[in-house]
Amino acid sequence: MQVAIPLYDGFTALDAVGPYEVLSRVPGAEMRFVGFEIGPVRTDNDQLALQVNAELEQVPEPDVICVPGGLGSRALLDDQRLLGWIRHAHDHSQWTTSVCTGSLLLGAAGLLQGLPATTHWLERDLLAELGARPVTERVVAQGKIVTAAGVSSGIDMALRLVQLMHGDVAAQAIQLSIEYDPEPPVDAGSPEKAPDSVVELVRTAAATRGEQPREVARRR
Amino acid sequence: MQVAIPLYDGFTALDAVGPYEVLSRVPGAEMRFVGFEIGPVRTDNDQLALQVNAELEQVPEPDVICVPGGLGSRALLDDQRLLGWIRHAHDHSQWTTSVCTGSLLLGAAGLLQGLPATTHWLERDLLAELGARPVTERVVAQGKIVTAAGVSSGIDMALRLVQLMHGDVAAQAIQLSIEYDPEPPVDAGSPEKAPDSVVELVRTAAATRGEQPREVARRR
Repeated sequence: MQVAIPLYDGFTALDAVGPYEVLSRVPGAEMRFVGFEIGPVRTDNDQLALQVNAELEQVPEPDVICVPGGLGSRALLDDQRLLGWIRHAHDHSQWTTSVCTGSLLLGAAGLLQGLPATTHWLERDLLAELGARPVTERVVAQGKIVTAAGVSSGIDMALRLVQLMHGDVAAQAIQLSIEYDPEPPVDAGSPEKAPDSVVELVRTAAATRGEQPREVARRR
Repeated sequence: MQVAIPLYDGFTALDAVGPYEVLSRVPGAEMRFVGFEIGPVRTDNDQLALQVNAELEQVPEPDVICVPGGLGSRALLDDQRLLGWIRHAHDHSQWTTSVCTGSLLLGAAGLLQGLPATTHWLERDLLAELGARPVTERVVAQGKIVTAAGVSSGIDMALRLVQLMHGDVAAQAIQLSIEYDPEPPVDAGSPEKAPDSVVELVRTAAATRGEQPREVARRR
């Protein structure tokens, strides 16, 4: 099973590494980190770099695509090289997946027209503008397309994918090997669960990062 | 707040990226990926590389140390350069933390003598051989040392650390920003919860990877 994870400047590390950590444990998995050019690619906060080991076109038809999100996704909603790669890969994939705002790129590539899908909770409106029907589930499987909510949800998404591909025992074995027995010390993991004041805090912090996601969408 | 995460050949990516994704969201956090030399460092499965951006000695006294685990940790239980760095950094740190078999390195550095600590469930015996008192909690805070269980537990550990440092609202805001509202599709995240057959499957798979962790420990 060949798995391609496209990296781009400003991706969110956990979006990519969560699914990688799960899917790389499927026997025979070949993980490919693809991008615009070979070399290090920096994350959204500019404090970490992961290595791209193949250009997009060198891995044209992976079995599984997993598109991570991140602030950098906004600059790519018009990028025909990446969107063209996503479309071609999706035409041949067994599974086409995304984490967080990675689904905006699936949407921009035209893959989500009229379909239920999810993204980071702050970007549900933009996902709708790109043609999808946003839902609040953490992992949304629609045919061979599986989208996941914000950042950490890629772990759940990838376990779900293993379950769909190989059944419960495989998913259990990988869950156990990464000891995924979550125990967050607070219970504010979704806007439905967090106190309103915390939701506003995070919303304001995101807005003051100077992003204009809707303007980007309109510019298309 | 300066956070140093030492990377070494054969580390496990999620061990490092989970805490990074949480701690980097603390306002003013400066994340440093340190190592034996600057450049890419490959993970345990050799399918991904993260970038080291400073040598160990260039970041001698970080506020927070977070030591990831991985198969490569075994080869370093004798490494005086890394263990010396850990000891010196710990002497000056506000918090000294580990994920998964990263605690074996804390133990080998002499930090865990007689203390309760945790590690990946497969390595509890080795942790005991290194002087600690293994417990089965997911996150173990003992003074300024915080150890976490296998791989994915670094996310919970880092949220706990944020809570200890900055209180509930900060932990809630970061949990919400990474949408950490776990929903694994199966419930086998610890050896206590997984079916016995799955525990045996994972144990056998780990053994056939050809590791001899106990021999490494005895060789010390």
